[in-house]
Amino acid sequence: MAVFGGIEAGGTKFVCAIGAGPEDVEIIEFPTTTPAETVERAAAFFRGRADGLAAIGIGSFGPVDLDPQSPTCGYITDTPKELWRHFDFAGAIRSVTGRPVVFDTDVNAAAFAEHRWGAARGLDTFLYITVGTGIGGGGLANGKPMHGRMHPEMGHVRIPHDLAADPYPGACPYHGDCLEGLACGPAMEARWGVRAENLPEGHQGWALEAHYLALGLVNWICTVSPQRVVLGGGVMRRGVLYPMIRNQAAALIHGYLDPPDIVPPSLGERAGVLGAIALAQSEFR
Amino acid sequence: MAVFGGIEAGGTKFVCAIGAGPEDVEIIEFPTTTPAETVERAAAFFRGRADGLAAIGIGSFGPVDLDPQSPTCGYITDTPKELWRHFDFAGAIRSVTGRPVVFDTDVNAAAFAEHRWGAARGLDTFLYITVGTGIGGGGLANGKPMHGRMHPEMGHVRIPHDLAADPYPGACPYHGDCLEGLACGPAMEARWGVRAENLPEGHQGWALEAHYLALGLVNWICTVSPQRVVLGGGVMRRGVLYPMIRNQAAALIHGYLDPPDIVPPSLGERAGVLGAIALAQSEFR
Repeated sequence: MAVFGGIEAGGTKFVCAIGAGPEDVEIIEFPTTTPAETVERAAAFFRGRADGLAAIGIGSFGPVDLDPQSPTCGYITDTPKELWRHFDFAGAIRSVTGRPVVFDTDVNAAAFAEHRWGAARGLDTFLYITVGTGIGGGGLANGKPMHGRMHPEMGHVRIPHDLAADPYPGACPYHGDCLEGLACGPAMEARWGVRAENLPEGHQGWALEAHYLALGLVNWICTVSPQRVVLGGGVMRRGVLYPMIRNQAAALIHGYLDPPDIVPPSLGERAGVLGAIALAQSEFR
Repeated sequence: MAVFGGIEAGGTKFVCAIGAGPEDVEIIEFPTTTPAETVERAAAFFRGRADGLAAIGIGSFGPVDLDPQSPTCGYITDTPKELWRHFDFAGAIRSVTGRPVVFDTDVNAAAFAEHRWGAARGLDTFLYITVGTGIGGGGLANGKPMHGRMHPEMGHVRIPHDLAADPYPGACPYHGDCLEGLACGPAMEARWGVRAENLPEGHQGWALEAHYLALGLVNWICTVSPQRVVLGGGVMRRGVLYPMIRNQAAALIHGYLDPPDIVPPSLGERAGVLGAIALAQSEFR
């Protein structure tokens, strides 16, 4: 049976895997340094196991160019990480491994894994949202990863912000108080003076966080009409957020439509790299 | 050559057509009254021309049930128009005409027409937005009409609302100051005391309207990453809005991504009924 490779490329670490699925996979991780050094470490991992390797999927931090018509398809584009800016990531992996490559965003890859093996099985239109250092979103629309002019940048939607109740101006260097600016992990830390994981249960910060995330969810739900929303990331490890968010989202929707389920991911931290494998399988099985 | 039927079902009028496309089509319209009477008028129109009629497409006011697995697929659901609530619209047209029926929202139908013959040719992920009595949105995602749990309800996204600058509480009976509540035609009339079409060029109401619509557009763009946005409807007849909206959207995006073109529809008022024909063609040609 053919095995597939996967790379989850994050801004601070790379996760690489070879296997066929959640029950049959070997995973390693190492820090993200320069493109040359990091790609070589990935290549070394795949090289030792290259015999049955059919193809490699990549789920990358972004923004990335996914347009098959574009001469820079497979590149990372305008990232603040200067060394990686305009780097031909898919091309480099293709070149050092000699294998076909499928390239997408980290969130679309994770969505793909949840679709194949996790909380979004059987659905063709759903969202996968992650709330951590930033807020990212992807998913499937009509059975395929959400692309378009580029790819979703869901964290940057604008939502109501009551400055009297919450004077914090927002952490987004581009937009100030977009959703990501108001509700990412670093915004919580800047607003309350402690990291989100150290904020006590019952602190008003959790109600505010649920409020902002519910506003984002309602906007995404009205726009896409997903069959389900899979909501994960470091901040969502505080499970008490789920019922708070569901309640606030229902209050905001106010009976206008029947909201979809909002559920945690099933595959946890492995979703990204497993999704990279699933992307490769879907194209080259 | 087979001809196809189309019905654009609006809350105040029905538009019915038979033909093959924009250059070869016969169109009639009549007021929306009771379901029985209105369906019978549509049936009478198609009956006289039934010989070569291959199938009928419907683009309907909503909300509608589009889920092929649902026992009420093809029904209008919780509309405020009581006579039409829970009416088996697709079934009634199928039954009185004896022809196969394709059923979708009015905005998805219009989007389909713009994709086939108009401003969205060749694109597989784009949005079609209409700003009039309400604000509606649809489009194609990965080459197919945007469905999901039900269908987009894009007018109901929540956006920042500065109550000091604009104390108007919003016209939406469900949400008050959602985008539709702040920026639909009736909201403009309630705020300024004259109908939008009579508001003078240069009135501050146009800048405010462009501001709200730009906020909605930025949210939809960040969520879906459309290749283009086709923006029409009665309020958008005031063409000066286009450059104002484009400028405000670019200012809000603030260089974070390269925004898609925002363009008027090419097919004007015929988009809905032509799209209904195109939907039928796509499935039964």
